[in-house]
Amino acid sequence: MSLAPTSDQPLYQQLADSFAEAIHQGTLKPGKRLPAIRRVAQSHQVSVNTVLNAWQMLEDRGLIEARPQSGYYVRGVLPAVTRHGQHKTRVRDPSSSKLDLIDKVFAAQNHPDYTNISLACPQDSELFPAARIARITASLLRRDPNMIGRYALPPGSERLREEIARRALHAGQTLTADEITLTHGCMEALQLALRAVTQPGDCVGLESPTYFFLFPLLASLGLKALEIPTDPQHGLSLDALEMLLQEQRIKALIAMPSAQNPLGCGMSLENKKRLAKLVNTYHVPLIEDGLYDELQFDWPLSPAVKAFDRDGWVIYCTSFTKTVAPDFRIGWTAAGRFHDAIARLKAVSSMAESALLSETLAEFLASGGYDHHLRTLRRRYAANLDEARGLIARYFPEGTRATLPRGGFVFWVELPGGVNTTEMFDRLLQEQICVTPGALYSLSERYNHALRLSCCYPFDARYTRAIQRAGEMACELAGVPCGEAQGVPLRPQTV
Amino acid sequence: MSLAPTSDQPLYQQLADSFAEAIHQGTLKPGKRLPAIRRVAQSHQVSVNTVLNAWQMLEDRGLIEARPQSGYYVRGVLPAVTRHGQHKTRVRDPSSSKLDLIDKVFAAQNHPDYTNISLACPQDSELFPAARIARITASLLRRDPNMIGRYALPPGSERLREEIARRALHAGQTLTADEITLTHGCMEALQLALRAVTQPGDCVGLESPTYFFLFPLLASLGLKALEIPTDPQHGLSLDALEMLLQEQRIKALIAMPSAQNPLGCGMSLENKKRLAKLVNTYHVPLIEDGLYDELQFDWPLSPAVKAFDRDGWVIYCTSFTKTVAPDFRIGWTAAGRFHDAIARLKAVSSMAESALLSETLAEFLASGGYDHHLRTLRRRYAANLDEARGLIARYFPEGTRATLPRGGFVFWVELPGGVNTTEMFDRLLQEQICVTPGALYSLSERYNHALRLSCCYPFDARYTRAIQRAGEMACELAGVPCGEAQGVPLRPQTV
Repeated sequence: MSLAPTSDQPLYQQLADSFAEAIHQGTLKPGKRLPAIRRVAQSHQVSVNTVLNAWQMLEDRGLIEARPQSGYYVRGVLPAVTRHGQHKTRVRDPSSSKLDLIDKVFAAQNHPDYTNISLACPQDSELFPAARIARITASLLRRDPNMIGRYALPPGSERLREEIARRALHAGQTLTADEITLTHGCMEALQLALRAVTQPGDCVGLESPTYFFLFPLLASLGLKALEIPTDPQHGLSLDALEMLLQEQRIKALIAMPSAQNPLGCGMSLENKKRLAKLVNTYHVPLIEDGLYDELQFDWPLSPAVKAFDRDGWVIYCTSFTKTVAPDFRIGWTAAGRFHDAIARLKAVSSMAESALLSETLAEFLASGGYDHHLRTLRRRYAANLDEARGLIARYFPEGTRATLPRGGFVFWVELPGGVNTTEMFDRLLQEQICVTPGALYSLSERYNHALRLSCCYPFDARYTRAIQRAGEMACELAGVPCGEAQGVPLRPQTV
Repeated sequence: MSLAPTSDQPLYQQLADSFAEAIHQGTLKPGKRLPAIRRVAQSHQVSVNTVLNAWQMLEDRGLIEARPQSGYYVRGVLPAVTRHGQHKTRVRDPSSSKLDLIDKVFAAQNHPDYTNISLACPQDSELFPAARIARITASLLRRDPNMIGRYALPPGSERLREEIARRALHAGQTLTADEITLTHGCMEALQLALRAVTQPGDCVGLESPTYFFLFPLLASLGLKALEIPTDPQHGLSLDALEMLLQEQRIKALIAMPSAQNPLGCGMSLENKKRLAKLVNTYHVPLIEDGLYDELQFDWPLSPAVKAFDRDGWVIYCTSFTKTVAPDFRIGWTAAGRFHDAIARLKAVSSMAESALLSETLAEFLASGGYDHHLRTLRRRYAANLDEARGLIARYFPEGTRATLPRGGFVFWVELPGGVNTTEMFDRLLQEQICVTPGALYSLSERYNHALRLSCCYPFDARYTRAIQRAGEMACELAGVPCGEAQGVPLRPQTV
């Protein structure tokens, strides 16, 4: 175990991170007692309080547990997903069979009767300040019903853009309201960004695995995809990226550097700085998808790559759909040197965003309840992820690996024994349980044994039962006996 | 004067149309008494009641006036804009100077301090049922605040799509909810339609003059424009179109057949049927922009070309932004054979529309207040147009021509004496008055002497004064003495 201090993170967090990594990599095995607090303080030359804070953090993240009169112990965890050794980079057009599979899974995910354990759309209304937002909307309407009768023109609500700029400052981005374009969710921000910086036939670099809706989006714009190796823990491989940039093989790059979908991984601060430098040096725009940035578990939040964007080559895209009001679909982009082009594209593509919804969000952001709400969400998702990983450990075949997300609410599971998750998807669908097979997340077939799961659902019997059934199905397909579902005692976890 | 009866219109309307045309063409001059009602009934072989209804219609449209004890007289009107003899069809890329001018005018139009007499965005909140809509929204939020916390997924509100289908039936379109895709306003519908049916480099047929935002939209998609002669009264030239279709020179066509922007013209029922047949025969998609269809002045409304679409080659696009709730930006498309492609494009381009706003509209449509509201709007706009044309007649140079719209709230004015309206725009802007110069509505320079004006504003002293100033400026640029603005008595109108 080695501490890799960075000047931007508090000491206790660095300490917690290094122990988390040791646990995750199996250096510290489940059931093992952690060294005494005073010894750790001495050996790492930090105060006792720093160690206590670090332990608190590890406990919050479900990695260790306190046993009265005895000390701290490592909890049972899933082995980490490791980077695949082989990764052939190949420029691809999405095949129609791949796009059909995406259509099919997307349709299934939206089916109201299915139990969904993988869709990245929180369906638990407690996860949003709905009543508060509803009150603000109703109050705005009372004060000025005529708001509805005014035509929404670009660039849209100045107040919301000012609030966004104010908040972005906290996250290391120095923006003004004029640099922000409101969009119809993050999806439109990505779409406009791609249209602004590419021509049909161009090749776009993507993380691998990546958000699956990017494939039909690229296909709709006549763009080719080049998937870049992405570490399940540390994110995009910058060495591979630099090679591609040197060889001028991509015209743009889309990445989620802080809390990636589907892996949940985040890049280190150093890597973010290097990424910003790379795209500014090679003049290749980075479309930074920051959809889950405010749901990072570490505090203070790791800044966006955009924070280190020297000459405006980073197009930052995000939205309030995952944190405040999914139904409003208000997103935004800060597009640097591409601002004018994107603002113009937005106007001719869908004009502007609703003032009623924008002003509601502005009022919510201004009134100071957002940070409190975000803290609640982060705690909730971190706890949910831990519980969900616990269920996977319990019901899935031995050798199942999973990522440990740094934020958000999705994670990535890789199954042993040649299990084909597309087959698993088909069979689970007959039981009205919906998962997303790994095949969706790449144009290659390299993730056919993986699943993305999501824990933005209420942790009720239905959800638990669905995970259990998925685990049983996986055991069956892997040809190994099932776990406690059949009354067999809980398998000891290999870590 | 000749009656051109069509079996689909009531007799009194045919009669009114033929007299309107006679007035408009100058066969019946201002101040002239109309023939006695009984004589007209005899000569046209209709009942006295039919003639009375027709006169009522002409009076409503401001073309004639009743003088007690004396009969009906033709009112003073502007001469009609006639079709330009010369129209060179040329495939064009929008020049950057043209796009810059569009940007400049658009920015000026949105300036809150300017008096706008040309923007097609009703700013008079009385024109919308804002209070009613606000009550519906507030009530939905009270019943289910969690609506805000649910992720908006395609295809979006079934209830709204059902209401749209139900209403479309009245307008001759047999649609089901499943054939309708909700969009972020009509602009997004047009954008998605173009992306679904064209490839970069393709050529798209447009009316001339046409909605100016189509030029930057086409440019953003790498599409070329071919402007097709369009009669200021009867709309798109189908002979010219058929030639282009035969020669396979366009890949798609965008048109507003019922109430065109900027001319206000509408095609006859025969021409609509022929247009539908042409695009179905030549397999070239028609993107039918029906934005002002429900604001047609004639009743019953003339059906959309989509109503005669045999094999699904018509993509009907429209929105509620001009009639119910501009701020909501909810539009829709019924895309025939392109439905699946457009639904998929919508999902990857901006996902879906807000359930809160969609359900509000659905409730408003279902509750039966919409038709009443539309009747009020039609009466109001018809009266506004008449008043505005009266002001033009009063203050603009002799020889000024104007269109007589069949619906909506914009009309087209052509100035005599080589007046350059772009220069006029620049000079009026210094007085904080905003008009849209004709140069915007074509990639050619053939409308440099024209203006589009709009009467979706309150008819107050500010609006009147702005029109008067525009007229004075036009007189000055044309080198003719000003009208009554300078205390000179009102010029007699040449018709």
